[in-house]
Amino acid sequence: MRDVCVIGLGLIGGSVLRAAVTSGRKSWGAAAVSGPVPGSDADTASADGYDASADVADALRRAALTDAVVVLAVPLTAVRPVLALVEEHAPGCLLTDVTSVKAPVRDAVREVAPSVTFVGGHPMAGTAESGWPAATEGLFDGAAWVTTVEEDTDLMAWKEVAALALDFGARVVPLDSETHDETAARISHLPHLMAAVLAAVGAAGGPVAAALAAGSFTDGTRVAGTRPELVRAMTEGNREALLPVLDEALGALGAARGSLASTGGLASTVQTGHEAVRRIAEQRLAPRTTLRVRLAAPDARHALRAVGERGGRITAVEGDAVVAEVP
Amino acid sequence: MRDVCVIGLGLIGGSVLRAAVTSGRKSWGAAAVSGPVPGSDADTASADGYDASADVADALRRAALTDAVVVLAVPLTAVRPVLALVEEHAPGCLLTDVTSVKAPVRDAVREVAPSVTFVGGHPMAGTAESGWPAATEGLFDGAAWVTTVEEDTDLMAWKEVAALALDFGARVVPLDSETHDETAARISHLPHLMAAVLAAVGAAGGPVAAALAAGSFTDGTRVAGTRPELVRAMTEGNREALLPVLDEALGALGAARGSLASTGGLASTVQTGHEAVRRIAEQRLAPRTTLRVRLAAPDARHALRAVGERGGRITAVEGDAVVAEVP
Repeated sequence: MRDVCVIGLGLIGGSVLRAAVTSGRKSWGAAAVSGPVPGSDADTASADGYDASADVADALRRAALTDAVVVLAVPLTAVRPVLALVEEHAPGCLLTDVTSVKAPVRDAVREVAPSVTFVGGHPMAGTAESGWPAATEGLFDGAAWVTTVEEDTDLMAWKEVAALALDFGARVVPLDSETHDETAARISHLPHLMAAVLAAVGAAGGPVAAALAAGSFTDGTRVAGTRPELVRAMTEGNREALLPVLDEALGALGAARGSLASTGGLASTVQTGHEAVRRIAEQRLAPRTTLRVRLAAPDARHALRAVGERGGRITAVEGDAVVAEVP
Repeated sequence: MRDVCVIGLGLIGGSVLRAAVTSGRKSWGAAAVSGPVPGSDADTASADGYDASADVADALRRAALTDAVVVLAVPLTAVRPVLALVEEHAPGCLLTDVTSVKAPVRDAVREVAPSVTFVGGHPMAGTAESGWPAATEGLFDGAAWVTTVEEDTDLMAWKEVAALALDFGARVVPLDSETHDETAARISHLPHLMAAVLAAVGAAGGPVAAALAAGSFTDGTRVAGTRPELVRAMTEGNREALLPVLDEALGALGAARGSLASTGGLASTVQTGHEAVRRIAEQRLAPRTTLRVRLAAPDARHALRAVGERGGRITAVEGDAVVAEVP
């Protein structure tokens, strides 16, 4: 097992460091300067007994010495300067990331850190909390963890990143970056914007709205409590994919408005939404068949992406193949 | 304590009957015909040992005999026919309701059941479940329960309804019907529509979206699982108040779209939403002072409504006064 070097010790990076240590890998981390108090995540991680510092360059030099997997766990806005440090101090390393947007990170790596072997990653896990104190070693247990498969992806490197995510208890979902970004816009970035809008409209109702708010409002606005910089980084960073999804939502909400104003009916909006949650629940519970994908096969990249696109997941690495469960 | 007669034995009506029995009041109920299987709620309530039937007229005649409080717990679409039965079989009774919209019910009572003494009510409690099997005696514990105070409200009748809600563990919030309806549009009806739209946009992403959906999507779409007839009844029934609130949401989402497309920035949307949830949380935790409102005072109606509008609540009935906690 390779060593693990984590750059960024917030909620996600901190959870990666904790999970990597628990998995038995020699692991260390460095806090990037993007947190609310520079260095504070490194101090608290050290106080909790982890090998952590605020010296990113030093952490990367150690990674280069032991050929460690480097996990980039900083917000999208901090990716480029950290990539420059990776290229300087750990050229040629195996690099993965946990950023919520994949195409922009891939493009930044190609530009700023062309020497590294990169496999994009995104664990679909999080809470409204931020920073090392919120990190837990079990954060990824049962969570989907996207690992990108592009035409130029080194599948032996991909396998190592998949094995790391599997070690953390995650279900590995292979996708190309664009499919990930469109899907993330639908199931994460749009929900964050809708929650922000809902919170603003609710608060405009004054203290009585605060007093009456119950389940539907609390559920619908929960993620609006996330640190604004993180929400901005993920939504603004996924602009290309988010714009058409935002237009779908505006179209659907505008249609509801038009229907309510004209006929007074909301049957289509309500029924469509109800069937959608039912269909999603069914898809998540659908029976699955097991198949193997040989990574040396000529169509391996296509086969891996097909697993993810069909709602499937990788459950194990076995030699030069992976085991997949597909609905 | 007056007896309690509940018409409608779904989630809310069933919970009222359970809570009324627990509070020591002689209570009985009749299932209206609006459930998914007519009569099934009456059968299961009887099987659970409650005094329940599917004979609304008979239940109302018993209410007239003992001067019971009649609690109307049917969806808005079923209110008018049941009101006609109330006027026929229990004329002059003290009537309250638990419907999610207040001005339309008030207007229907004035038209269809002019002889009754009416105090509108709305407990802000619920789950995505429906029907008697989902009902629990603790559903209202700690929940806000709006009781309407109009210019013509009989405050002695209002006090009896408030006492009933307090017996169920609720916090009583006095408001006029219009303020209730606008607030409900903001913190309940809009969230239901947003959840439906979010679910539809998510499901359009196919099986991969279902596989990747995590916290923000699950939270944001939870109430889209509510029975569509109930969501339609509350949203369509509150058309007047919901339209301008829906326009606020469309405006805010459209502004986010415009900003993302032009400058690429979402700072205003994200920051406004974040501050809104913080402000709402602060308002809910604000320190409160206690005051008494004498129901015989000339400005009692105004004073009661002011308690609700300021985010306060009634916590006890004491003789001819009520005790209020106000931020």
